[in-house]
Amino acid sequence: MNHDAVGILARRGLTEAGPALRDLVAWLRARDLAVLLEEDTALLLEDVSGCDTMRGSDLARRADALVVLGGDGTLLGASRLLGERCPPILGVNFGSLGFLTEISLGELYPALESVLTGDYAFDERKLLHAVVHRNGEEQASADVLNDVVVTRAALSRIVELEIAIDGRFVSSFRADGLIVSSTTGSTAYNLAAGGPILHPSLSAVVLTPICPHTLTHRPLVVGDDLAIEVRVCDTREVEVHLSFDGQDGRPLTSEDTVTITRSARRLRLVHAPTRDYFEVLRTKLRWGEPTARRR
Amino acid sequence: MNHDAVGILARRGLTEAGPALRDLVAWLRARDLAVLLEEDTALLLEDVSGCDTMRGSDLARRADALVVLGGDGTLLGASRLLGERCPPILGVNFGSLGFLTEISLGELYPALESVLTGDYAFDERKLLHAVVHRNGEEQASADVLNDVVVTRAALSRIVELEIAIDGRFVSSFRADGLIVSSTTGSTAYNLAAGGPILHPSLSAVVLTPICPHTLTHRPLVVGDDLAIEVRVCDTREVEVHLSFDGQDGRPLTSEDTVTITRSARRLRLVHAPTRDYFEVLRTKLRWGEPTARRR
Amino acid sequence: MNHDAVGILARRGLTEAGPALRDLVAWLRARDLAVLLEEDTALLLEDVSGCDTMRGSDLARRADALVVLGGDGTLLGASRLLGERCPPILGVNFGSLGFLTEISLGELYPALESVLTGDYAFDERKLLHAVVHRNGEEQASADVLNDVVVTRAALSRIVELEIAIDGRFVSSFRADGLIVSSTTGSTAYNLAAGGPILHPSLSAVVLTPICPHTLTHRPLVVGDDLAIEVRVCDTREVEVHLSFDGQDGRPLTSEDTVTITRSARRLRLVHAPTRDYFEVLRTKLRWGEPTARRR
Amino acid sequence: MNHDAVGILARRGLTEAGPALRDLVAWLRARDLAVLLEEDTALLLEDVSGCDTMRGSDLARRADALVVLGGDGTLLGASRLLGERCPPILGVNFGSLGFLTEISLGELYPALESVLTGDYAFDERKLLHAVVHRNGEEQASADVLNDVVVTRAALSRIVELEIAIDGRFVSSFRADGLIVSSTTGSTAYNLAAGGPILHPSLSAVVLTPICPHTLTHRPLVVGDDLAIEVRVCDTREVEVHLSFDGQDGRPLTSEDTVTITRSARRLRLVHAPTRDYFEVLRTKLRWGEPTARRR
Repeated sequence: MNHDAVGILARRGLTEAGPALRDLVAWLRARDLAVLLEEDTALLLEDVSGCDTMRGSDLARRADALVVLGGDGTLLGASRLLGERCPPILGVNFGSLGFLTEISLGELYPALESVLTGDYAFDERKLLHAVVHRNGEEQASADVLNDVVVTRAALSRIVELEIAIDGRFVSSFRADGLIVSSTTGSTAYNLAAGGPILHPSLSAVVLTPICPHTLTHRPLVVGDDLAIEVRVCDTREVEVHLSFDGQDGRPLTSEDTVTITRSARRLRLVHAPTRDYFEVLRTKLRWGEPTARRR
Repeated sequence: MNHDAVGILARRGLTEAGPALRDLVAWLRARDLAVLLEEDTALLLEDVSGCDTMRGSDLARRADALVVLGGDGTLLGASRLLGERCPPILGVNFGSLGFLTEISLGELYPALESVLTGDYAFDERKLLHAVVHRNGEEQASADVLNDVVVTRAALSRIVELEIAIDGRFVSSFRADGLIVSSTTGSTAYNLAAGGPILHPSLSAVVLTPICPHTLTHRPLVVGDDLAIEVRVCDTREVEVHLSFDGQDGRPLTSEDTVTITRSARRLRLVHAPTRDYFEVLRTKLRWGEPTARRR
Repeated sequence: MNHDAVGILARRGLTEAGPALRDLVAWLRARDLAVLLEEDTALLLEDVSGCDTMRGSDLARRADALVVLGGDGTLLGASRLLGERCPPILGVNFGSLGFLTEISLGELYPALESVLTGDYAFDERKLLHAVVHRNGEEQASADVLNDVVVTRAALSRIVELEIAIDGRFVSSFRADGLIVSSTTGSTAYNLAAGGPILHPSLSAVVLTPICPHTLTHRPLVVGDDLAIEVRVCDTREVEVHLSFDGQDGRPLTSEDTVTITRSARRLRLVHAPTRDYFEVLRTKLRWGEPTARRR
Repeated sequence: MNHDAVGILARRGLTEAGPALRDLVAWLRARDLAVLLEEDTALLLEDVSGCDTMRGSDLARRADALVVLGGDGTLLGASRLLGERCPPILGVNFGSLGFLTEISLGELYPALESVLTGDYAFDERKLLHAVVHRNGEEQASADVLNDVVVTRAALSRIVELEIAIDGRFVSSFRADGLIVSSTTGSTAYNLAAGGPILHPSLSAVVLTPICPHTLTHRPLVVGDDLAIEVRVCDTREVEVHLSFDGQDGRPLTSEDTVTITRSARRLRLVHAPTRDYFEVLRTKLRWGEPTARRR
């Protein structure tokens, strides 16, 4: 990947990343790589000479590899900018290990080395595509890395939702809402709502009701080749919202249908050299380590 | 209870209750009882001669027994009007059995008979008292029959809450919110959020987190003689709401402390003559009936 | 499928199936089809003239279609007999709808007609293959339709289990046990233990801990192309059992490794003509029906 | 408590407790206190001069305070020996903090000091009393600190249980079993099975089904003044066991009725001087610490 361009995007206002950023830029330039800085990220540096500063969308279009400094939320935001492109992404956490930003500062350079030589371990993460239709017209659409969430407003009555899969009625139920989560999102909001963990290699989606009043409702895992349709049964006296990756929201009415399918897009998340998916799970969820056994 | 006054309060606009209301008024007047009609309830009748029509708060002050027609929500609303008084309440459901409105139309007259003779089965339901303080000043207060709920707005980030009990720190945790539920409320929102059922004879409260991100958080049952304090740790980027019995709400800031203690108030819920608490549970939750056993 | 052979297998001692069996045999013979009767099933009939009576294993080898009368347990047992063969199976329930025996007596003949014309709706259900090794030697193996369960004895201390997937350590945890369930088994024991529902079209397996003492352990869904290994960490003071489909069991020691992979075998479960997978779910789990909406 | 007797009981074979035991004996003798050693505990010491060595039951009868060295299981065992007596108990953990053995070695002497001066913080823990009747005859009985558990054998079919409270039918349900847990036991097996935490000051019991097949069954909390009756509906093809505190077990038949009431017995668990119930919860369940707030 010689002469190629490495983009850098940090969480806005992450001043403690300043020294690490300076080191990173020096390291990249010493290797004669082009350094692309997202414009807010550039503000964290005193000296940006030799770097190209640009908007996030331009960075996403031009970078051959992307270093994201921050937490899972920063990486979620970055993933929106990439469009169809799928360069290797190095998620570097400041503070504790993230599900997506699993690389610590100490692991960044070995991980970057592995990316530059082209010999790196990564997870390919599938995105979901959501479209909102009203009376046959598209109102909004988005690709999400984690989840599409339909939820009632805090002071609203509970909402009645109806799910269909590939045109077949699945159920209608009263709840606080519904999470339609990707494999990546399964360790985020879905987990808090009682949903299962889905391994990222699965081509699957999980539908997890939020506080369902029908106590027999359970998370349902289906193939991501199926089209999932969600409707609000009635919005008299209820106020319902739709959100993409927990960051981007809009109100929803009973005229709307939200359709979720798999997106063609993928993210390529680079692993720290010595870490795999299960180790991240164990650390984040504080699962036990292997036990010495009598053998 | 001869010559005494029976109050009637129906869900607003419950037109299908018209014939039942007419019969009920006739039945009461034939027994020479004073009939008090809540003013909106009177609109469901063509002929209100011989009845006293008044506002709900006046009705609550004067009735020696109260018939509520509607669902659990109607009864929750009625409970707010009663203040310190605790007359027998007959909750009559239109449609399916309610947890609080467990009396069917067919059971109403035998239940009324038992109340008039003074020999009736009832559950005494304890209320909780909630007060909001900001910088030492009381901002709001309410008695609740079901629950006090703190919850983030639909499009807000998750909220961090802190709980103390009798002045001792219990925990701080990130979640969609927290339900502080009475024994009566334990079969309402609390159940949907994964909380346990508390028998109404207990002097206890259950604290149930809503979708906690700390996966080891579990519902916690404590005595209702303990003062529970709930605070929002930080409301930058979050929008938090407080609601009483799911009907009455207000925004909450990190300056506020919500304190929940037991209320001196009780409700006296009359049972249908042949029904007890566990039968209502079994029916509502579709639990099994006793099984014929080899004996 | 003219001149072909239809096998019939009923739950042992299901005397109330006698009349239905007699009608079924007559119906098949009127169409000139060979009727194969499992030997215990033949005992439910007074007259077996014109039928071939044989052991279940022979029946499984020869039938071009199989009618199973009983409940899900009967069908689980029948599935063991089939080996690599995959004829259409009609699961007929006596009593309530089963997840696997979803055809009622009234629906049997239309379903049989559709099978005989070759134009029938069915779910293909994948089986799992489990092998137990001790010190490199195979101790036992089985194909299962529902699940492989490792569980402590009733009076044993809790057990510590260790899971690896494709040779990578996943976690060790203390629990009552572990369920490794197929998509079909996901609505059986897995559901009772808090696991999610997996649509049968998924190529996936769910690992659900039973009463885990590590409260952050959650059901984990992985592709069925991955080899799952389960070991008991230590069996001092514990007594551990392994069971296949809840019917076939054996003790397990800390010398043993249970390896679960997908089986090459499939079952072909015929749907009642007017029923699909989600309708069975709704009925069995008492989910709601579609709601009339304002549109 | 001068001249009084302190009993010491360690987990059998806990050789690493030797040095601590030696120090403890010296410390007590320097204060002129009588030292009573349980006979197996004495084996961990080289020199037992000046101590009285005796069986656990005698120790329990004579000690004015009891030091238990080991884990929660050791303390559970010790609690069985005490009968009606209720001396202060100091549970000292070797390894990690226990729910019952919350005192670390470093905290033992300050805690002992506080006990000797009579000014110590403690939790009073209520026990439950269980009796098994068959055809009117008592078969067995026990006091338990944690729980009474009815559970099927590992390879048995699921069991159908029936619960009555104060003579009123509650429900019959199919499950792996049922936990009837005290407030103290609520953080043990009950928690693993999805039950709530009950504060030890409550006069309450929680009934938590283990993997119920009726998905609407939920933990039920009732007053400990109510008599709980549990019966096995039918034991054809099932094998059911009853256990007291997970340590003492016996088979159960459909002729048996298990009745659980509150015991008159209490345990007096001494707190480490600087620790309260909620801190133990936080540490054991890895809940969060208080967060610095903007105020």
